[in-house]
Amino acid sequence: MGRWQPNARGRLQRAALELYGERGFEQTTVAEIAQRAGLTERTFFRHFTDKREVLFANAEEFEGSFVRALVAAPEATPPIEAVAAAAEAGAGAIQSDRAQARRRQAVIAANAELQERELTKLARLTAALAGALRERGVPPATASLAAEAGVAVFKVAFERWIGEEGEEDLPRLVRQSLDELRALAAGAGAASPG
Amino acid sequence: MGRWQPNARGRLQRAALELYGERGFEQTTVAEIAQRAGLTERTFFRHFTDKREVLFANAEEFEGSFVRALVAAPEATPPIEAVAAAAEAGAGAIQSDRAQARRRQAVIAANAELQERELTKLARLTAALAGALRERGVPPATASLAAEAGVAVFKVAFERWIGEEGEEDLPRLVRQSLDELRALAAGAGAASPG
Repeated sequence: MGRWQPNARGRLQRAALELYGERGFEQTTVAEIAQRAGLTERTFFRHFTDKREVLFANAEEFEGSFVRALVAAPEATPPIEAVAAAAEAGAGAIQSDRAQARRRQAVIAANAELQERELTKLARLTAALAGALRERGVPPATASLAAEAGVAVFKVAFERWIGEEGEEDLPRLVRQSLDELRALAAGAGAASPG
Repeated sequence: MGRWQPNARGRLQRAALELYGERGFEQTTVAEIAQRAGLTERTFFRHFTDKREVLFANAEEFEGSFVRALVAAPEATPPIEAVAAAAEAGAGAIQSDRAQARRRQAVIAANAELQERELTKLARLTAALAGALRERGVPPATASLAAEAGVAVFKVAFERWIGEEGEEDLPRLVRQSLDELRALAAGAGAASPG
């Protein structure tokens, strides 16, 4: 009690995701999360405002990894390449724990309110990328389209990554999705030769 | 009272948007909406479950106009063209009243909860388009990317349409955004020659 707990935050996040998966998000209490992590409720509230916050606590860091990579791209980088670099960096930031990402996604998929929050997180990410592109001198409509394209590419790669057993390299899946978007935009992919 | 009211639904929607703009969404009551429309609260509740519903009452119709156009596209149509046709149809379905669309967007932009609902509406639209593409035999990842691209193109065109005084033809703006996405995906648009 009260003494320093090594990686309390990570232990609480892991315990919370386990419990949300086992019992459902609604049915899990903060007391249970703390107990599973071998910590106190007091420690929980030192790290998170509520049990929903556990799922979105890394959102700022996640967005930051995208935006920093975009800002760091050389000036002459075409917007689509700049957002691709951002999406690869975001992918790199989360790819160390696919099992955890899968658990989180399953919890969110089962709860409409959490889905809304997740959509808001992605909309903010899109707005941040568009803003960073405008600051690089990209015209507003192009910046918005590029940001939307970058987030779409990330989302499709992420869906594949949490779904598949095969490819474990999320940044590589991002690059692959970008290539598919390019082929698609160029008119490829008719389902039938007609 | 009780007698048939011509276009009660449209009158209530118009009255609601006026009041939301004048007083704010939170501050407006159903009684005030009914009064402004020259109708009773009872009539309001015959058309809408609550004052939030007024803003999203056309969502199904809106989504339907996208999906029907996608389904109607010839079999050999490349996915990007199929979603572009869908977005043009969706644009055509709403473009008769730009002033109303502007009022609606301003109300939503001012309220976080309404924004979440709007994001959910667009996420559902994206899922519906991806589903319709998969039914045409388009592989899942390509279908998702094409659906995201189609909705992104629509969103950017819509932002322009409600922002500008110039171009009033929303379907034309959709086509223009698609051309921009194509150029972008092909690597155009570096802000500086480096």
